[in-house]
Amino acid sequence: MHIEMICTGEEVLSGQIVDTNAAWVAQRLLEHGEELRRRVTVGDRMADLVGAFTSAAGQASVVLVNGGLGPTSDDLSSEAIAQAMGVGLELHQGWLATMTEMFARRGRPMAAINRKQAMLPVGAVMIDNPVGTACGFRILWRGTWFVFTPGVPLELKRMMEEQVLPWMCDEFGLAPKMPLHRLLTIGQGESQLAHILDDLPLPAGVELGYRASLPYIELKLMQRRDVALQVWETLLEQIRERIGDALVGENVLSVPDAVHRLLSEQSLTLATAESCTGGMVASQLVDFPGSSCYLLGGWITYSNRAKQAELGVDERVLAQYGAVSLEAAVGMAAGAKQKAGTDLAISITGIAGPDGGSPDKPVGTVAFALAHSGGVEAQMLRLGSRQRNQVRLLAATVALDMVRRHLLGLPVMAEYGYFERVGAKSIKA
Amino acid sequence: MHIEMICTGEEVLSGQIVDTNAAWVAQRLLEHGEELRRRVTVGDRMADLVGAFTSAAGQASVVLVNGGLGPTSDDLSSEAIAQAMGVGLELHQGWLATMTEMFARRGRPMAAINRKQAMLPVGAVMIDNPVGTACGFRILWRGTWFVFTPGVPLELKRMMEEQVLPWMCDEFGLAPKMPLHRLLTIGQGESQLAHILDDLPLPAGVELGYRASLPYIELKLMQRRDVALQVWETLLEQIRERIGDALVGENVLSVPDAVHRLLSEQSLTLATAESCTGGMVASQLVDFPGSSCYLLGGWITYSNRAKQAELGVDERVLAQYGAVSLEAAVGMAAGAKQKAGTDLAISITGIAGPDGGSPDKPVGTVAFALAHSGGVEAQMLRLGSRQRNQVRLLAATVALDMVRRHLLGLPVMAEYGYFERVGAKSIKA
Repeated sequence: MHIEMICTGEEVLSGQIVDTNAAWVAQRLLEHGEELRRRVTVGDRMADLVGAFTSAAGQASVVLVNGGLGPTSDDLSSEAIAQAMGVGLELHQGWLATMTEMFARRGRPMAAINRKQAMLPVGAVMIDNPVGTACGFRILWRGTWFVFTPGVPLELKRMMEEQVLPWMCDEFGLAPKMPLHRLLTIGQGESQLAHILDDLPLPAGVELGYRASLPYIELKLMQRRDVALQVWETLLEQIRERIGDALVGENVLSVPDAVHRLLSEQSLTLATAESCTGGMVASQLVDFPGSSCYLLGGWITYSNRAKQAELGVDERVLAQYGAVSLEAAVGMAAGAKQKAGTDLAISITGIAGPDGGSPDKPVGTVAFALAHSGGVEAQMLRLGSRQRNQVRLLAATVALDMVRRHLLGLPVMAEYGYFERVGAKSIKA
Repeated sequence: MHIEMICTGEEVLSGQIVDTNAAWVAQRLLEHGEELRRRVTVGDRMADLVGAFTSAAGQASVVLVNGGLGPTSDDLSSEAIAQAMGVGLELHQGWLATMTEMFARRGRPMAAINRKQAMLPVGAVMIDNPVGTACGFRILWRGTWFVFTPGVPLELKRMMEEQVLPWMCDEFGLAPKMPLHRLLTIGQGESQLAHILDDLPLPAGVELGYRASLPYIELKLMQRRDVALQVWETLLEQIRERIGDALVGENVLSVPDAVHRLLSEQSLTLATAESCTGGMVASQLVDFPGSSCYLLGGWITYSNRAKQAELGVDERVLAQYGAVSLEAAVGMAAGAKQKAGTDLAISITGIAGPDGGSPDKPVGTVAFALAHSGGVEAQMLRLGSRQRNQVRLLAATVALDMVRRHLLGLPVMAEYGYFERVGAKSIKA
């Protein structure tokens, strides 16, 4: 099926808004097994809009047109398609009534300019907008269906999900949404993952996609055709085995998401002691409602003084081993667990850069410790020489992955791939 | 000047990557006073690429083509333009030598497939890539210059800045980069800001743009033509006056950026005490290298127990006024300042939602306190009923803005616009 997209609006063309609608539409189509062939982005000039419509007509089966359905004078989509086709606009009484009622419910009079939003090209089929004043419509021209949706992301998504995609399934036999399994990984590049999985035979109808979204590479396993459950499960098992510890979550948003769920389920409590991450670990958990149940305390001990005064890290330890050391991490985690009276405590101390590195401990060297009822486990990893915010983000993710692994009964220290372990220490309680 | 852009790559078309290159290019052109007319995004199919080149040839003065210059088989840009024009590819000896040397410096042999990156269409002018193996090139076809750049953002930006834009200035009289003044605001919607500035007369050649980038609305004031310094300064002064306290920074990245600079310059130290922001304030500062000089300590006291145990907030205060109160905020800031021994301490405690709100203190109610040498100043604001992460982000921004205002000698409590103040308290030291 040949599907194109036309995105309209100066703010999208000029980059004032990054076009997330276009990315969302393409991804949604992919979940139905369809790829966009082309996307044209134009501003609010009548000639450019007419030109874009004209050159797509007769080429594509469906052209999804997004934006330009608002009430103001720079919203030209309806007028432009009418002009391209050489038809007039006519008032859609049903939509005018819906809009009038919508304003009445909000206790506001409808402005005269909104009437424009009920003017559709002759021959168009209205598409209901349950959450806004811009209705959509579809119209057939030279064998191509042009489908118009508003630019407000929430409205676009509702209308696509509830009306446009079901219509495409009926009209063009678009496949139903494919089962999708998401696997989050860290510590491996996209090309390395592709290499690891390269010779894995995929059953017919199954596709594997990659998406980089810092700090993760996400693998998407999609069924374009029905696959027997047994085959699917076996495949997943093979992938898990090949990826190994680099796999940090399945069908979850993020590692903090997984840790939030596990801590909530297991009714265990956590404290954080952060140096180079500076509060990022705690903040990623506080992002979830209900985190107050388990996050009983957190310390940002970026200075040596704070490590000593607040967490009781021995001054001599800092002097002898340095602030970025297994020993300092152990002291921080043990101190935090004891002071907060929690079941668990995680600590992070590292060199985020750009300065502060040495031959022995280059930028990207980070020490972690997890204190739990059985003792303290610490490791020092080299996350690689990266930008400061990347080192910090990776460090926060590894720290929470240690908590996740502990809660799942897995060994706390994992082999992620590129992250080299340069030290480890376990202390029994 | 008629400029178009063609973006290539399945990952861009399919939305796996949101196309930030396109947005960056459009914004950079705007700074020279030029607007993109059209952007076409195609995948890695030869026919679609040839089609896109062919339909732009003879229409635009310049077509900026991004992506598809890598070494692998799905990198087709050079081959596609050659095929469209009906010319061959020839080896560019100079670029082959540069690449060979590049690999030698890294101590790696050059793979055979990289040779492809030195094959340019006959008649092309090479564009140097100082940071990668994909050189760019430009070629004239039917009166249109097609300019090819690689998709790696860092490489695209270097090559545009250093070679493509200067060439466009020479060849097409592209105006030099216009003076640009950025004003960061919080607490006002885009339409409200537009309303406030609506009747402000702009001198000829001056343009005002808006860009929403949570938690800010950024105003961009651009000179498309030379404007007398006096006129420019007067205009800026008028804008500052109209926006008032909602203006939280000029020509800075963010409020944390401004606070980082001010604390570093003034050699003052800071501690943080965070409840609902959960470490976000500290983390935003630790993002800047050198923040260890002033951020001497931070506490995440999301639980009442931590507020008492770590910061010495009186149990009776929490029982009587609640954890989200001016009194609790004062206790947190005073405790943090005293324990960390810093010049300043900032505290945040609020209801981020979605639960926990009450008629008296709805979701979005946040109390802040700044402790300094002169005493403690506290306020409670209603940031509005928003999503949890938005409340948290706005709260972190307001907290740091209180620090910023104090460091600039401004009153700590500001009138941001939509944020309603429901309580305030000042305690002299």
